[in-house]
Order: sequence, then structure tokens, then C-alpha cells
Amino acid sequence: MTLPAPLTGVVPPVCTPLTPDNEVDTASLTRLVDHLVSAGVDALFVLGSSSEAAYLPDRHRRTVVETVVGHVGGQLPVLAGAIDMTTLRVNDHVDAVTAAGADAVVVTAPFYTRTHPAEITRHFRAVAAHSPVPVFAYDQPASVPLKLTPDVVTELAEDGVIAGLKDSSGDEGAFRACLMGTRALPGFSVLTGSELTVDSALAMGAHGVVPGLGNVDPEGYVRLYRYAKAGDWERALAEQERLCTLFGMVEVGDPARMGRSSSALGAFKAALQLRGVIDCAATMLPQVPLSAPEVERVGKYLAGAGLL
Amino acid sequence: MTLPAPLTGVVPPVCTPLTPDNEVDTASLTRLVDHLVSAGVDALFVLGSSSEAAYLPDRHRRTVVETVVGHVGGQLPVLAGAIDMTTLRVNDHVDAVTAAGADAVVVTAPFYTRTHPAEITRHFRAVAAHSPVPVFAYDQPASVPLKLTPDVVTELAEDGVIAGLKDSSGDEGAFRACLMGTRALPGFSVLTGSELTVDSALAMGAHGVVPGLGNVDPEGYVRLYRYAKAGDWERALAEQERLCTLFGMVEVGDPARMGRSSSALGAFKAALQLRGVIDCAATMLPQVPLSAPEVERVGKYLAGAGLL
Amino acid sequence: MTLPAPLTGVVPPVCTPLTPDNEVDTASLTRLVDHLVSAGVDALFVLGSSSEAAYLPDRHRRTVVETVVGHVGGQLPVLAGAIDMTTLRVNDHVDAVTAAGADAVVVTAPFYTRTHPAEITRHFRAVAAHSPVPVFAYDQPASVPLKLTPDVVTELAEDGVIAGLKDSSGDEGAFRACLMGTRALPGFSVLTGSELTVDSALAMGAHGVVPGLGNVDPEGYVRLYRYAKAGDWERALAEQERLCTLFGMVEVGDPARMGRSSSALGAFKAALQLRGVIDCAATMLPQVPLSAPEVERVGKYLAGAGLL
Amino acid sequence: MTLPAPLTGVVPPVCTPLTPDNEVDTASLTRLVDHLVSAGVDALFVLGSSSEAAYLPDRHRRTVVETVVGHVGGQLPVLAGAIDMTTLRVNDHVDAVTAAGADAVVVTAPFYTRTHPAEITRHFRAVAAHSPVPVFAYDQPASVPLKLTPDVVTELAEDGVIAGLKDSSGDEGAFRACLMGTRALPGFSVLTGSELTVDSALAMGAHGVVPGLGNVDPEGYVRLYRYAKAGDWERALAEQERLCTLFGMVEVGDPARMGRSSSALGAFKAALQLRGVIDCAATMLPQVPLSAPEVERVGKYLAGAGLL
Repeated sequence: MTLPAPLTGVVPPVCTPLTPDNEVDTASLTRLVDHLVSAGVDALFVLGSSSEAAYLPDRHRRTVVETVVGHVGGQLPVLAGAIDMTTLRVNDHVDAVTAAGADAVVVTAPFYTRTHPAEITRHFRAVAAHSPVPVFAYDQPASVPLKLTPDVVTELAEDGVIAGLKDSSGDEGAFRACLMGTRALPGFSVLTGSELTVDSALAMGAHGVVPGLGNVDPEGYVRLYRYAKAGDWERALAEQERLCTLFGMVEVGDPARMGRSSSALGAFKAALQLRGVIDCAATMLPQVPLSAPEVERVGKYLAGAGLL
Repeated sequence: MTLPAPLTGVVPPVCTPLTPDNEVDTASLTRLVDHLVSAGVDALFVLGSSSEAAYLPDRHRRTVVETVVGHVGGQLPVLAGAIDMTTLRVNDHVDAVTAAGADAVVVTAPFYTRTHPAEITRHFRAVAAHSPVPVFAYDQPASVPLKLTPDVVTELAEDGVIAGLKDSSGDEGAFRACLMGTRALPGFSVLTGSELTVDSALAMGAHGVVPGLGNVDPEGYVRLYRYAKAGDWERALAEQERLCTLFGMVEVGDPARMGRSSSALGAFKAALQLRGVIDCAATMLPQVPLSAPEVERVGKYLAGAGLL
Repeated sequence: MTLPAPLTGVVPPVCTPLTPDNEVDTASLTRLVDHLVSAGVDALFVLGSSSEAAYLPDRHRRTVVETVVGHVGGQLPVLAGAIDMTTLRVNDHVDAVTAAGADAVVVTAPFYTRTHPAEITRHFRAVAAHSPVPVFAYDQPASVPLKLTPDVVTELAEDGVIAGLKDSSGDEGAFRACLMGTRALPGFSVLTGSELTVDSALAMGAHGVVPGLGNVDPEGYVRLYRYAKAGDWERALAEQERLCTLFGMVEVGDPARMGRSSSALGAFKAALQLRGVIDCAATMLPQVPLSAPEVERVGKYLAGAGLL
Repeated sequence: MTLPAPLTGVVPPVCTPLTPDNEVDTASLTRLVDHLVSAGVDALFVLGSSSEAAYLPDRHRRTVVETVVGHVGGQLPVLAGAIDMTTLRVNDHVDAVTAAGADAVVVTAPFYTRTHPAEITRHFRAVAAHSPVPVFAYDQPASVPLKLTPDVVTELAEDGVIAGLKDSSGDEGAFRACLMGTRALPGFSVLTGSELTVDSALAMGAHGVVPGLGNVDPEGYVRLYRYAKAGDWERALAEQERLCTLFGMVEVGDPARMGRSSSALGAFKAALQLRGVIDCAATMLPQVPLSAPEVERVGKYLAGAGLL
């Protein structure tokens, strides 16, 4: 399907349910898609950070896109990450995910290697020239050496290289600069990936939100988006604060025993299992699984938010 | 062939010559291999950082390993990088490079994702369990979030998970701790990737060196290694200082116009072209090429070192 | 005077006007205070980052506090930074600024030295035990090694150690967590130091704002605060965006020639001179002065914002 | 006394013994000085990082310099840190320590504030113009935002601004570049602050060493220096490795409970107390003291090195 321009609304980065031996659990994945679609989300983003894209081998990635695109059957757009180190490797993923039916691709700045703003724009220009579908820039400075500055984003937007921005930088001042710098461009979409400041981003004029926590509570983010669009900032604030409290689950994993990715993605998946959406909370190697007491604490967060 | 244990000597990380349209130039690659082998190096390392591994799509990587392994025909060992974000993706590269004939694989800690020492050891254990050939740990904190601490290296070495360490951290105190921590393990190899302190590393007891600059001047590093092994520290120092001066070429690229990878790898390739070893100095997208005056400055470094 | 609890409203971090030979220009300083007070600000913060506290020797610091406290004569509260590396050094500044009449002190986590959350809380507890006036925690992760986490802030607030937080971290998710974690504490004040997201911070429930740019356009921040308090988010947004555009002046300084502090503080002072508030735009050694064309660009920002 | 040019040999950064209530214990300090001098060190460096300079209020700093200068009575040179954020603050410390008799001052790049190489050179030039004694540059990138690059060091050395470099960066490649870049300057002194690679530094041509661990085992560093000067690299290596093992004491402090400064400086002081040199192992607020079992482990390190 053709991507709406601008893309708006709630676009959850879909978790990748796995079997205990780290294969894609396609039955759970389609149930997760149903869980999100029935909550009223506007599009789906697969193969992002919350999808464990960095952990998925190419065949898993293909399975994910084919399963999700096949299951949604054009009801709503599917964006797919093409996450890899540099241009030609990214282009190979662009080929794979568009062959599998993705409606847009989401691409970061180069990583692993030392890079430069001039190389970042060169990278996006080459990917966009290659891609048959719109390209979204993914600002993820926790994973890549350089933040996408408002100057870089605005230049790429003005030149029609990118169709939108998915900003997970947590830098709300720069986010606002991207919004202001691209406001005159009809169809350009600015999305926040920061779960905790969605109300702020929408008040600034953001087009939508890509919340990892939206896997667990998509209805919450749909409500938050609708309150904000209606200008009901009081209800938006209350909903946002409820979601912030729920987000506390990402810290359940013991930092002496595991990294923050194991903890956060483990918590989202444990929550999805506790809510009956997916069969198994396994995360990809080499992440460390949550312990039983840690999973129990996830359950308490769900109960506290009225989700159990 | 079976890898010597410990691996010792000069093990250059082989540059990947390219055509102007970013295909692997196999003719230049075999000439480069001849240039290195005839200088007396002890093994070859392909698909490392100096090989632009992060930039090479899978088919380029396969071509590189097949070409080099085919060309050296068992004269000396070939190590190959299996550089990717996480365990299962790395394992796919391990399959590919060993199918193409690599004698050992070189693997970093996970990257792009936030990681933890416990996840790093889990990663190496899973890769080693999968790999048909010895695994070298690649300490590259400029590219991955966490340095491999001496504790992690020693644990993995003692448990027979890794056969060696290639340390490009530049942290010589920790390098020494890795050497002291693994000294009792016969066959374990500790290699430095720091071009500028090879004499120091060898004096500490390092088994060998993996110098990017060794592409340009392999004879220099072979001499340096031999002087050090012979305990002729005066000549070793003079040779090392000559190489340090030559290494200045990595800074020729204007930092306002390009990143440090474009500058350093561009300089190595320009030098190889000026020395008549390879046909074209192109680097992979999205790196920025050196300008003509910058290439001229590379020539001056070569002339200064008596290499033109 | 007694500090209001909670402290609310616009609390500009007062620039320190200097003579060309780097002495405090007290005449300009009192004019700057008048400029701020007459705009309707609620309190003044001296000896913060925008005041070049890091650059001021002790005698300059004393002159600043005495001059400002003497000039405002109790009309509104004066907070003073006690910026130094560690506890006992900070306590000496607490003594000095309270002797000079400051109504509250503003203190960062330890810096220069490697620190730890347990040492940070120990630091604030020791400073608070020593200080005769309320202590505000200053979260400034651009200058100190560790961010003040919401856990640390909430613990110190609940135990009555700190009276408020001045958050210049730019991490709006953590800012919200501090707000939510201290909401039950009457009198605790949470202030944002992020010029570009004041509307967001106030919508979240922040008590006030400490904007460096408020030196240049205090009326703008006073309006923004009043619109937000009145729930007029449309006007607040427009005012905030006007101020964001004005804030662009902090980038006028050539990054090849000077650091970001020279550029930003140089721009604020050039603007104050162009507006006729202070006599000289000099910044403290070793900052680099703006060039004439850079000052001209500051003037264009002022003109664009209707301030010339 | 006049500082030798170049300054050579072992220059321990003298710990600052304290009473339990954080006053300078001058009796212990003079005993520590005797312990160092009688071991054969070549000069003393007070008010550096190992001296807890960042933690000492001005009156403690003055007491330290006066005590040490008074006690050594011109037997050997005393260098003093003038550690503060920026130029004029540093100059005030220069005045204080030279009034108290210091023979040279040791100065870092600006910190707390964002800085730039052009501002760093401006800073050193202004301090040197002010100082009545030679200025050593202190490269301490763990504490200040920017490393002193070989370009900056060489420029300042060539212009006679600085008399030497104390390099605690741990970047041995850059250290070598500083050595090579200043070799033609008679009298310029390059000292390493890296305890673990002293043999390497001396082999490169370093003039001396400033080892924090030299408080605990000055004889060891004196022997190491002498072996290296005599070209007896085998004995130098053995001595260095013994010292590396001893250095392991810096990790005794539980990282869940304290920062790395508390652990390292706490261990040095515990070792000095166990060896009978100082009366009390207290470190300055807000550092966290070692526990009894942690102190016991320090004792085991001493015993292992034959120092108990």
C-alpha cells in the first residue's frame, strides 16, 4: 500500500516473539499484530530496536516482514528497519524487506565505523536512490556514533531524500528544531520514539509516536494520541503519566547481571506473555533472561496499570 | 591449514581494493597479498576494520575470503573477521568465511545494542560453540560500546573459548594485564592492533602485531618484529619511530569534509596505489574520497619514509 | 529574604558583565538586574553556568553576589551557585555567597574526579548540613561525570536535603520522573534549565524555568510562563517557538575557532550590548571573542525576534 | 630551587594524609615525604589527582605545599598542582603555591566548561605569562573534556610556554608523538603518569614517571627507572610486572558501593597505613571509605609484593 504522507498516529515498533530456541514464533507474532491493530494503531514498524533487529539474522528478518505484511494484508502500512552498518549493507536489507512487502524503510546513520555528517548525508542519499519505497531516518544516538542534527535532517527532508524522521534521541530541543525546520514540507513526518514525552512531542506538532511500550499497552498510546489531537491536554497528561509509571518495568532486570536491552526487551516480552499475547518471553542471544522474581515484578507493573 | 598456536608475528589486516564502482578488485587484491607475503608476513587477516569489513556487503566479503584463501593456497594462515552486531548474525558470517576457507575467525563484542560483560561472555561462548575454527576476540572499543576487560579476556581464554586476542583498544595497561593473565596458557595468542606501540607490546611479551599501516609498509613491520624478537631494542625503536612518522598520513583528510575512517583508509589505499600495488584508491560508500592535494601529501609521507 | 517554597516562575541565570580586562562591570550588572526585574522575573540565579561561574575567581564571585543582592534589596530572591569540584570546596563557596546575602545555593554533583551515586548523595547531605540556606541540586551532565538520576533526586528531596532541582540535562523523560517522584512533597521546586522546551516542562508540572536566553529576552520567558500557567498552550507554543528561533544565536561562533561556551555566552553578551543593557560583551579568559561579522549575526537574530 | 631541565626520574604524586575529620595530618605528610625521599625519588609532585587536589579546600592546599616545601628544604624540587576550572582561578592557585614555595606548577586544560583546542592554548599561554615558575601541562582526559593533542603540546613546548608534560591519558601512541614532537627542545620534560607502562614510556624516551602507586612502593619505581636507564630491560620488565600486580589493589573497593577514586586512593592510603607510614587512611569527603575486608585485601597485595 502507499504510505500516507505525512504518516501520523501510533506506530508501534513490533516486538519479535521467539521460541525458546530463538526461532521466530510466527503464531505469536500474528497474535501480537492483532493485539496492536485491534487497539487502533495507525501503522506497524518491524525490525526496529524493540524488534531486536540487531539480533535477528537475515532469515529471521525476512520471516518477520513476510509474516506481518501477509497478516495485515494492506489494512495498515508496514515500515521495516533496514538496520546495518553502512550503505551497501543497508541497501541489501532494503531489497529484502521491500521484496517481502514493506511499505517504507527505516534507516540509521552508519555505525561501527567512525563517521561524519557529510558521510551521513551521502549515506542517506545513496540509500534513497536505491530504495523503491520511502526512507525514514532513524535517529538513534545510543547505537550509532553521531546524532542526526536538525541541519542534517532538514537538508535531507528539503531535498526529498527522506520522507520522515523517527527520533529516539531523547533530545527534545533538537526534536523541536527538526519539527520547525521541516514544517513547510507537506507530507514530511516527524515521529518521536521517546515513550515518556509523547504528550510534549505532540504538543510541539509531532505527527506520531513509535513507542516500544506500545507493544504492552497499545490502547494507552492510542488514547494519548487522541486526547492530544483533540487538545485535551489534561487527559493526555494523566494518560502519559500512567504510561510513564508502567514504563518503570524496563528497569526490573538486575544491572549486575544483565544489560539494559535484556532488561527492557525482556520486560516487554514478559508483559506480553503475562497478558496472554505471546507464548514465550525469550529474547535473542546473547541477552540474559529475566529471573522469575523479575518477571513477577513485571506483573506488578501490569497490575498497577490495570492491565492484568 | 591449522593455525599455529600461539599465532605469532606480523599479521596485516588486508585492505580491500575496489573498483571505482565499489566492486572488489580481485586482481589488485591478489597483488596486495603478494606484496604482503613477499615481505615476510606470518599470516593474513581479512575482513577487519582496515579491510572496510563494516562497509562490505556479504557477497563482497565472500569474494574477499575466497580470493585470498585461494591465492595464498595454504602458504600461510588466513584469519577472517566475522563482524556483525550480535551472536546469530556473527554465526552466519562464521559459516560463510569458514566455507570460503578461513583458518580462524575474529569476532567483536556485540554492538549497536547496549551490552554487558555477562552478555559479552555469553556471546563469545555461543560463537565458539558454533565455529569450526578457532575464535579470536577483537577488542575494538572505538566501534563497540564496551571494552573487553582483562577479566573477560582471561576468563574466555582459560575456558578455551578463544584462541587469542586482537587488541585495538590503545589501552596498553589493560593489554599488559591480558598478557599477564593469559601467560600460563600455552597456545594463547595476544596481538596488538596499535601501529604506534608495537615495540612496547612486543617488549611486554605480545605474540604479534596486526598493523593497518602494514599494508603500506609490510617490510617495516617485519623488520620491527625481528629486531624485537632479537632483543635489538635500539633498532626496533628507530624502525618504530620511522613507522610512526609514516602513520601521520592517516590525518591527511580534511576533518571539515570527512570522517577519520575516510581519511585513514583513503590514505592507506592512496599509498598502495602510489606504490603500484593496487589500481584504484576508492573506498566504500559512504566514505568521502581524498582530494588530489591530499593524495599528494600521502606521496610525501611515502617519500619521507623511503617508499617511493 | 526567605525563599518561597516552592520557588516558581522565571529565574534567569544572570550573565556576568565584564570590563575589557576581565573585571566585573558592576554598573552593567546592576543595569542587567534592572532589565530582568522590570521584565517581571520571579528570582535571580547568579554564579551559574550562564554567569561564567567556572571562569570567575573567588573575588569576582563575591563582587557579583554582593552587587546583585545589594541592588535587588530583598525585592526578589537571589540564588547563588556554589560551583566547585567537591564537598569542602563547595562548602567554602556556600559560606562566601551566604555571607554576601544569597537566599539559596545551587550545587552540582562532584566533578573533575570520578564519582558514584553513593558519593553524590553523601556530597549533597554534607553540603546541606553545612549550609544556612536551602540547597538546590543542579543537574548539569555536560559538566560533571554523572547525571543526577530521578532516584537520587527523589531520595534527597524526600529526606529534606535539597529544596529543589535545577535540571539542565535536556533529558525530559528523567525530568518528568523527578517531577512525578517529588510531587507529594510540598515546597519542593523543580525547575528546567532547557530554554527550548519550557512549554513542555511547564505542561508536565515544572515550577519554573532558568533560561540562559532569558538574559536577552526576559519578557519572552515571562510571557511564556504566564501563558502556560493560564493554560493558553497555543500562545505558549508560539512564544516558545519564537524563543527557539532566537536561541539560534548560540551557534554564531565559528566551531573551527572557538568552543560552544565562547559562542553561546559571547552571543548572549553581544545581544545584551546591542540592546544597550551592558557596556561590553567580553567573556572571561580563555574564551575566544566573537568576530565582528559574528556579532552582526547576533544582531540579525535580535531583529528577527523584534528585539532591536 | 631551580627545576632541573629537563626534569627526570621518579616524581611521585604525593598522597595527602588526613585526620579522621578531614584535616591535613602534617606529621604523617612529613613521614610520607621521608618515605619517598629516602627511597631515592627525584622530585615531589603535590596537589595532583593522587593528592586528592580536587577535594582539598584552599587552606588544605596551602598547608600541603608549605609542609612539604618546608620539610624537604630544597633537597629536591617540589612541583604543585594548580588545579581549577579556568585561567584566572588557576592563576590564583599559582600565586598561592608559589608563595608557599613550589618550584613549578602543574596545570590541566579547562574543565567543567566546554572547551576547544584554541581555548586550551590560550589558557596555557595566559597561565604561563602569569606564573613566576615553570608550567607543566597535565593531560588528564578522565577529568577534563579534551585530551591535550600532540599538536597542542608541541606548539606550547616550541613556544616556551610549558616546560614539560605530565601525561596521564593512557594513550601511548599520542604520548610517543609528544616525545617525538618535542625531542629537539633541550630541557623539555615528558613524564608519564601511567603506572602500568613505565618501562614502555622510558623505552620510548620519556624523561620520568609520576606514579600514584609510587606512594606505596617508591623503591620499586626507583629500581624500575634505574634498570631502564641502564638498558637492563629484562629486570625492568620483571619490576614493572611486580608493580602491575601490586596495582591491582586499586580495585578492592566494591563498585556497587563506591566510585573508582574512593577505591584507588583508599587503597593507596590503606597501604601506607599498613606499612606504618601514615596514621589514618581517611580520604576526603564525599569519598566512601574502604571496609575492613577491603583493607585486608590491600594487605594481601602488599604481602604478595613483599612489602609487609
